[in-house]
Amino acid sequence: MSEVNVKVRDMKSHMRKLEHLMGASALIQWDMRVGAPRKAMADRGEMLAFLTGEIYKLQTSDKMKEFIDALIDSKELNAIEKSMVENAKKNYDLTKKVPEDRAVAYAQVVSNSEAAWEEAKDKNDFESFKPHLKKVIDFQKELVEHYGYEGNKYNTMLDIYEPGITVEKLDKIFSDLRDSIVELLNKIKNSSVKIDDSFFKKNFTTKEQEEFSLFVLDKMGFDFEAGRLDESVHPFTTNFGNKDVRITTKYLKNEFRSALFSTIHEGGHAIYEQDIPDELKGTGLASGASMGIHESQSRFYENIIGRSRAFWQFFFPEAKKTFSQFENVDFEEFYKAINVIQPSLIRTEADELTYSLHVIIRYELEKALINNEVTVEELPKAWNEKYKEYLGVEAETYSEGVMQDTHWASGLFGYFPSYALGNLYGAQFLNKMLKDMPNMYDEIAKGNLKEIHNWLKDNIHKHGAVYKPAELIKMVTGEELTAKYFVEYLNNKYSEIYNL
Amino acid sequence: MSEVNVKVRDMKSHMRKLEHLMGASALIQWDMRVGAPRKAMADRGEMLAFLTGEIYKLQTSDKMKEFIDALIDSKELNAIEKSMVENAKKNYDLTKKVPEDRAVAYAQVVSNSEAAWEEAKDKNDFESFKPHLKKVIDFQKELVEHYGYEGNKYNTMLDIYEPGITVEKLDKIFSDLRDSIVELLNKIKNSSVKIDDSFFKKNFTTKEQEEFSLFVLDKMGFDFEAGRLDESVHPFTTNFGNKDVRITTKYLKNEFRSALFSTIHEGGHAIYEQDIPDELKGTGLASGASMGIHESQSRFYENIIGRSRAFWQFFFPEAKKTFSQFENVDFEEFYKAINVIQPSLIRTEADELTYSLHVIIRYELEKALINNEVTVEELPKAWNEKYKEYLGVEAETYSEGVMQDTHWASGLFGYFPSYALGNLYGAQFLNKMLKDMPNMYDEIAKGNLKEIHNWLKDNIHKHGAVYKPAELIKMVTGEELTAKYFVEYLNNKYSEIYNL
Repeated sequence: MSEVNVKVRDMKSHMRKLEHLMGASALIQWDMRVGAPRKAMADRGEMLAFLTGEIYKLQTSDKMKEFIDALIDSKELNAIEKSMVENAKKNYDLTKKVPEDRAVAYAQVVSNSEAAWEEAKDKNDFESFKPHLKKVIDFQKELVEHYGYEGNKYNTMLDIYEPGITVEKLDKIFSDLRDSIVELLNKIKNSSVKIDDSFFKKNFTTKEQEEFSLFVLDKMGFDFEAGRLDESVHPFTTNFGNKDVRITTKYLKNEFRSALFSTIHEGGHAIYEQDIPDELKGTGLASGASMGIHESQSRFYENIIGRSRAFWQFFFPEAKKTFSQFENVDFEEFYKAINVIQPSLIRTEADELTYSLHVIIRYELEKALINNEVTVEELPKAWNEKYKEYLGVEAETYSEGVMQDTHWASGLFGYFPSYALGNLYGAQFLNKMLKDMPNMYDEIAKGNLKEIHNWLKDNIHKHGAVYKPAELIKMVTGEELTAKYFVEYLNNKYSEIYNL
Repeated sequence: MSEVNVKVRDMKSHMRKLEHLMGASALIQWDMRVGAPRKAMADRGEMLAFLTGEIYKLQTSDKMKEFIDALIDSKELNAIEKSMVENAKKNYDLTKKVPEDRAVAYAQVVSNSEAAWEEAKDKNDFESFKPHLKKVIDFQKELVEHYGYEGNKYNTMLDIYEPGITVEKLDKIFSDLRDSIVELLNKIKNSSVKIDDSFFKKNFTTKEQEEFSLFVLDKMGFDFEAGRLDESVHPFTTNFGNKDVRITTKYLKNEFRSALFSTIHEGGHAIYEQDIPDELKGTGLASGASMGIHESQSRFYENIIGRSRAFWQFFFPEAKKTFSQFENVDFEEFYKAINVIQPSLIRTEADELTYSLHVIIRYELEKALINNEVTVEELPKAWNEKYKEYLGVEAETYSEGVMQDTHWASGLFGYFPSYALGNLYGAQFLNKMLKDMPNMYDEIAKGNLKEIHNWLKDNIHKHGAVYKPAELIKMVTGEELTAKYFVEYLNNKYSEIYNL
């Protein structure tokens, strides 16, 4: 073994310890959300805090620095090893650049702000949340100074969640996307097609819904020997390695779509994690390439596949077997009803078309906040103006408006864009898939989702986080990220549905 | 703060870390047995091994030694602090006395032996298991040499699981118990009373059984906001602090008693853990006083309460509401059927009377093995002779005989006696309870189990592991441990049932 090989081996064994601690933390969190008894929470919080401290120690240990210094300029590393070292260095630097006392102070500010947000949201009381939000934003600006930045200050925040993405790129992409969606939305508003989705609001038992969700998950290729489906208040995906990927959903008695589409969405995340190859164990790269790429998989399954005509050609007759509620519903009615467009106030409940507008509004406001172009004082007004302009709706309360999401209270500036990027990546992948598999929709209509799964696995999943999102999209589709394919997809789909 | 107070505080914070690591391990193990997907097991094993290593490091750290050395002779400690330091010292010494290379070798021997046992038991192949068992026993003897011993070498093994118990004490107690049970058993064999328990073997759905188990657990005082009931192949209790105590049971379609009595048994363990006071956090004493005392609580609820006439005076009418299978069963038939005595081969399926004989046989053989009075070669013969002599039954296979339990394969020599000690402690507590609460059975017959629970909490549970079992039994009952009360209890109960 060369000296480099020995260092790589030792670094992997160090990283593997980190993975074990993170896995244990993730299991504790899963358990807290799925089944732990009420009184356990305080102790469990203490346990998590302890493990988080241990994770921090390993991530910033002298040993980690030694590995990084020894390997960062080595010419002997393969692609995976190179990415492992770069990724570890990024994490190490991000943590170490913030003086410890400021990191501790920041954790406290966020913790206070989250608590204040929860109370303020309940009471629709923006005034009491404002000082907390101001502190969080001031800290975001301070963090940018610690981390350093190139071009726009907000680039530093973006890069944390979507490496390589910049304001310069996003401004162009998002304004194209925004204008196209708003244009299409206006046409839909004027369309004579009116869609009735009232049959989704009948009484659906949890048992029936669960049965059907499991059926769909299985068809998607979710491996039940390496994962499970449970119920929780907010649907989520978590995993402890590629052999144990757990998703949750939430069954609403009077809304058929909610549990099913969140199962498909989380199923898309889960299949990604299940497909990560074993060889990435102990590299820190055994996960999705980025938030945006992860979201591309979940939203691809949820919308592009799960709300497609072909998908329901197979699944609608199956659904009829389970749900007598659809007895008198015909296919066209059903297909239209799962694709109804209805601008609304709440991001998490938005339809496929308007969803991205919610995200773009947040992007524009975050960027303005970080660059001192909007103050916290002016924020609710700016929020409402944008909602009115892009979506034509206006929140009557702060809770349904500027305070609806936890992200800002939690200091997650730079995170929102990933959600919309997921849509763009997804449509760009779709375009390439259709070239590689021209009969893709015919197969879906037969209930065969295997080829799609294999394509995603071979082109995306198997790489884990070895490549940056920008590298990956170029590698897979031959092009840089563009809004073009998503816009095209939306125009085609909704022109047909709304007879435009 | 005095120097001692500072040390105590720092030691507790060190111990608390240990508790977090142990809690995380326990949750992972619970999850593996209750719900983790099949393919997760290998990774999860690796995660557990890592955490076990971290626990070992903290338990044997220089810091731990420093705390122990600074505090062991201090006169300023209260009872809890004194016990904390002594307990930590015992653990530290036991670990440190074994040279590290021998500890590693032993772990390997046990791991091989467990795997060999599992295969050999399946195939009824004692020959292939023999060399492994020999190695384990040789290692037990070596461990005794490392640990040191007073009197009988087997004392060292006993002291690990039941501090203060010695061969000298147990020989007397167990031979009294054995002779009394054998005598009573022979009378029962000659009794004209024949008990029919065939109505327990009808078809009972899991749902009905679960409902009734939950009803009984609730009446016992199990706190469902600090625990849960699940299903697993082998019933067990685990906990991560006193606010999250989890039990499992196993529902057999054609055997009413199995799930119910194992729920009550595990419920007894669980209530003990739920009652441990918060102040014992971070002392290493937030658990039962010993294996035997723990077993006294589970077996007390399972047998002394759960198989009592008074208990079923309340619960039998309740059971009839759920189970139409008992429609034509009268109370006397029912009561007798849950107390039927039937000598059998398998310890875990034994009735209340013969159970202790299974344990005593193992005690006698373990002691003989450690003291070179029986060889592994002679073991099956010795086993069968004792079963024939005490129970009047003879195993036709090794799997139903000498290979039925995992304990020896796992190196748990000294562990078995706790099971029988539990019966003795339990009856001795009962004797005192009846003095303190003469109308105890009247209350039980009304379905009121609260006073029993409070008595156990005040006298036993609230002390956690602060006192050694011998101190505790003396403190609570005013007497040393004796078989007298259990023998008396058995004679009274079964003379009535079998009309002796």
